[in-house]
Amino acid sequence: MSNTLLNRRDLDFLLYELLDTEALLDRPRYQDHSREVFNATLDTAHTIAQKYFANHNAKGDANEPQFDGSEVHIIPETKEAWNALAEAGFLAAHYDADEDGLQLPEIILRAAMAYFNAGNIASSAYPFLSIGAANLIHSFGSEEHKATFLPPMREGRFAGTMALTEPGQGSALADITTTAYLDDDGTYRIKGQKMYISGGDQNITENIVHMVLARIDGAPAGTKGISLFICPKFLVNPDGSLGERNDVALAGLLHKMGYRNTTSTVLSFGENGGAKAYLVGEAHKGLQYMFQMMNEARIGVGLGAAVLGYQGYLYSLNYARERPQGRLPSIKDPTAAQVAIIQHADVRRMLLAQKSYAEGALALCLYATSLYEDSRTASSEQERQQAFLLLDLITPIVKSWPSKYGLKANELAIQVLGGAGYIREYPVEQYYRDNRLNPIHEGTEAIHGIDILGRKILLNKGAGLTLLMETVGKTLTEAREFEELVPLIPPLTDALQTLGTVTSTLLGKMAEHTDLSLANATVYLDLFGRILMSWLWLKQALTAAGGLARKDVHEADAHFYEGKLHAARYYIQWELAEIGPQADLLCRFDDIPFTMKNEWF
Amino acid sequence: MSNTLLNRRDLDFLLYELLDTEALLDRPRYQDHSREVFNATLDTAHTIAQKYFANHNAKGDANEPQFDGSEVHIIPETKEAWNALAEAGFLAAHYDADEDGLQLPEIILRAAMAYFNAGNIASSAYPFLSIGAANLIHSFGSEEHKATFLPPMREGRFAGTMALTEPGQGSALADITTTAYLDDDGTYRIKGQKMYISGGDQNITENIVHMVLARIDGAPAGTKGISLFICPKFLVNPDGSLGERNDVALAGLLHKMGYRNTTSTVLSFGENGGAKAYLVGEAHKGLQYMFQMMNEARIGVGLGAAVLGYQGYLYSLNYARERPQGRLPSIKDPTAAQVAIIQHADVRRMLLAQKSYAEGALALCLYATSLYEDSRTASSEQERQQAFLLLDLITPIVKSWPSKYGLKANELAIQVLGGAGYIREYPVEQYYRDNRLNPIHEGTEAIHGIDILGRKILLNKGAGLTLLMETVGKTLTEAREFEELVPLIPPLTDALQTLGTVTSTLLGKMAEHTDLSLANATVYLDLFGRILMSWLWLKQALTAAGGLARKDVHEADAHFYEGKLHAARYYIQWELAEIGPQADLLCRFDDIPFTMKNEWF
Repeated sequence: MSNTLLNRRDLDFLLYELLDTEALLDRPRYQDHSREVFNATLDTAHTIAQKYFANHNAKGDANEPQFDGSEVHIIPETKEAWNALAEAGFLAAHYDADEDGLQLPEIILRAAMAYFNAGNIASSAYPFLSIGAANLIHSFGSEEHKATFLPPMREGRFAGTMALTEPGQGSALADITTTAYLDDDGTYRIKGQKMYISGGDQNITENIVHMVLARIDGAPAGTKGISLFICPKFLVNPDGSLGERNDVALAGLLHKMGYRNTTSTVLSFGENGGAKAYLVGEAHKGLQYMFQMMNEARIGVGLGAAVLGYQGYLYSLNYARERPQGRLPSIKDPTAAQVAIIQHADVRRMLLAQKSYAEGALALCLYATSLYEDSRTASSEQERQQAFLLLDLITPIVKSWPSKYGLKANELAIQVLGGAGYIREYPVEQYYRDNRLNPIHEGTEAIHGIDILGRKILLNKGAGLTLLMETVGKTLTEAREFEELVPLIPPLTDALQTLGTVTSTLLGKMAEHTDLSLANATVYLDLFGRILMSWLWLKQALTAAGGLARKDVHEADAHFYEGKLHAARYYIQWELAEIGPQADLLCRFDDIPFTMKNEWF
Repeated sequence: MSNTLLNRRDLDFLLYELLDTEALLDRPRYQDHSREVFNATLDTAHTIAQKYFANHNAKGDANEPQFDGSEVHIIPETKEAWNALAEAGFLAAHYDADEDGLQLPEIILRAAMAYFNAGNIASSAYPFLSIGAANLIHSFGSEEHKATFLPPMREGRFAGTMALTEPGQGSALADITTTAYLDDDGTYRIKGQKMYISGGDQNITENIVHMVLARIDGAPAGTKGISLFICPKFLVNPDGSLGERNDVALAGLLHKMGYRNTTSTVLSFGENGGAKAYLVGEAHKGLQYMFQMMNEARIGVGLGAAVLGYQGYLYSLNYARERPQGRLPSIKDPTAAQVAIIQHADVRRMLLAQKSYAEGALALCLYATSLYEDSRTASSEQERQQAFLLLDLITPIVKSWPSKYGLKANELAIQVLGGAGYIREYPVEQYYRDNRLNPIHEGTEAIHGIDILGRKILLNKGAGLTLLMETVGKTLTEAREFEELVPLIPPLTDALQTLGTVTSTLLGKMAEHTDLSLANATVYLDLFGRILMSWLWLKQALTAAGGLARKDVHEADAHFYEGKLHAARYYIQWELAEIGPQADLLCRFDDIPFTMKNEWF
């Protein structure tokens, strides 16, 4: 059974029908492009993903990177994939033309990345991280940093990483202890250990540029004493050639459940005196800078999770259509023909749930990317600000919701396949293992729950939530024009009111009872996510209803639109309904986990 | 960090406080035993589990069985574990003394099996399946079958398997095509292929006894044409020595995501003329017989899932107590000491959920085993019948609920560990991979949903449900005596009423609209499971409240009882609450998945 990468009909729907990506062509930055260029970019990404990424997805899983004590060995297909992607310009495609870029909009590149993720999530992590690292240098580095590191990073000769986590602090960046010592020449020497660094070593590129968070010797405690450094694996000579090996050593590889072809490393900086490093921007502002990369990475993690969910959905859908087994409960004649398992209602439930999670998560990530684009290139300052406001508010959900429900989708894909889902002879168990990383890295649900409820909601006096509610309200008004959407309006209208009530109730005690108010923040995050996703499904249903109303709609399109409508019904009637008990426990400040004592476990 | 096998305090609580296992000593079959004997049995199981099973849990995962084309190779520790278990008598412990057994009650042996499962779920599958296969022969085989196969199976020289599934039919046993041809000597020759046969080949025992479902040539279609056969790997000579190799060949091994040290096989019967086989009992009654083994296996699968959930819970609990990271949200001073992550409310939520799932699932499986025991050895016919009635009704939940929530517990264990949870350097990711099998084998949730709603509920005019409701009602009445339990009474009382309403609503249309009435049976199964589990948690809370009320309660016991009370609060206030939306969609005969069309996906 062939393993389709994404569904181009759906991608086109999301890009050109749900989100008006074509309207970007009116903006000065994109005026030399056309829809044809966008599509050709996606075609290229699809081709490379199929030929160079999907080809070794299972192989990379079965033959994980090995460290022989001096070198890391990764299966050679990984480097070929990197090269193909780099040669097609994808490492530089979002830069302006005068920076040797293709000046393409983020949303097209996000969709292109979705193809690479679909082909091989683990191998696509290398370019994903490199692009992010280069963006950090581009935004905050000096002209010298840019001149030294960006050209080889864009060309694919150097890769980049994010080196944040340490063994002793995990997610609590405030407590990092890696230290940078100022040298006479203005550079620094870094000493410390970093852990779980993806791509921290590899044999794909000739150099690796680590973006390292460290504390300058004597810096204040906490997040306000963290600085950002460029620390390459090999020093770079003034002429651009590689110089000596820097004092960064691979202490060991970690062995993941999935995502195996991405090296996960423990890196030792400065075991022999100190790793030479260059301060980016101002001292002590490192975390602030890094947040740019983290916020990009969060959309990227959400996208990867969405895409893995999507791949499991497509595979299990094909399987369910082809696999005959059993009969409907009403058929008692044992000689009646077996039916394809898609005829079983519970299999359809599992497929519909997967569809709602996978397509919904992809829609969410592309929507977030359109906000990111708007925050930079929308024509008015107000539009740019509003887009930023919305994106900032929903980023915790853009990261967390696809991670949670993409994984859930993969769990269901396994279940649709039954025994076949559990064996490595079929691809879905790998998606599930790969996807289990996503609820962990770039911030757990717990962290994002506290981020949205304890911080994001409060920014600009709650302007983000107000704007979001107006946006949803607009869709609800538009939905009234289509009879088939009318039943979906009351549940979402009520849910919006619930969100308002829950939020103000929780914020009411936040100052006085901070810890209790935030105790159930993970539940709040899920409730918020369900409402946001219900809106995105209503918006998709609205677009689909518009499509169905067109006189010239083709049969295949009509089926596609009906599917969107039905998935919206499923999501709103089945999944949104679950916010009832969540809202109850949030509003009563349920303290059962909060008051559980260590010694009672 | 040491990896504790189960929690003996909890096991004792379940066996001797929640369930009155000591009362079994009054029954004639157990009058020669004592609580000391029971405890010594558990101690022995614990010791063997620790020394011979836990020792190679990770190794068996990393070095899965290999087939070299003629032989299967399994790491040698597996055979040592098998031998230790067999030598201690656990393969025969439930048989009467006059059958060379230890005449021990099922519940003690179930608890012993829990230790083996906890040590190594994959290696414990071999004895688990063998005991079931031997029980089948014991119940339905001829005297000759028993004399030939049972002694070596009890001694551990022969192992047993269940050979049901075929490549073409999956779960739909009605459609099996493996055929048995009668020979002149009254034996049969079997031809066909079986798939996903656990333990179908191995190098642990000298022989393997396959219990095979096949259709006698010319038998009627459907389940009423299925017979049960004994088909050994090696024929057995009249003197008990091994004869020639039977015509059963290993076609290949399947490569599972987890549970790796259990071989999963494709077996070819009769590639060279036919595999010699012996009919068990009467022709065409095979499925009926096999259901005995399947029902035993279902409790066993539930137990394995519960125990994997339990192991992940214990590991993540220890980790959370020892791992310092971050501070409470209210603490803004970055120089304040880090707290152990158990101090974070969301970590406590994840631990409390795990506790409620793992301890709850173990309680459920032991309760089901006590019903099984009562159905055989209770003093009055009425008690035996009632126990059977209850067990028969709840078996779908005993299999499914621990499988679903044990896996969920493992997902949470990973999340508590964060990055450490995702790497093979820590044990929890293996529990998660191992446990993912349990919602699949011995019937998926979909199958058990249809079984309970479409069949079990209706048996004996609904007497099972009536009896269950009376049983729950009794606990509710008893709970009124403890002030701390009062808040838990209304939610469960309401839930019981909901269960009645939902059930009668669904049954009301069952005859006329069978397929629609069963369309959401998986949701019904989950709703039923939540209510049954809430009762078991209330019952545990009741026992704990009784314990706390004792004047001489020790501090450690008091903490333990408080934990039970708090977990009951968590389960009833957080997890039972979710039946609201489930009941709504069931009662409205929601048809969204049911009406989704193939071409709309």
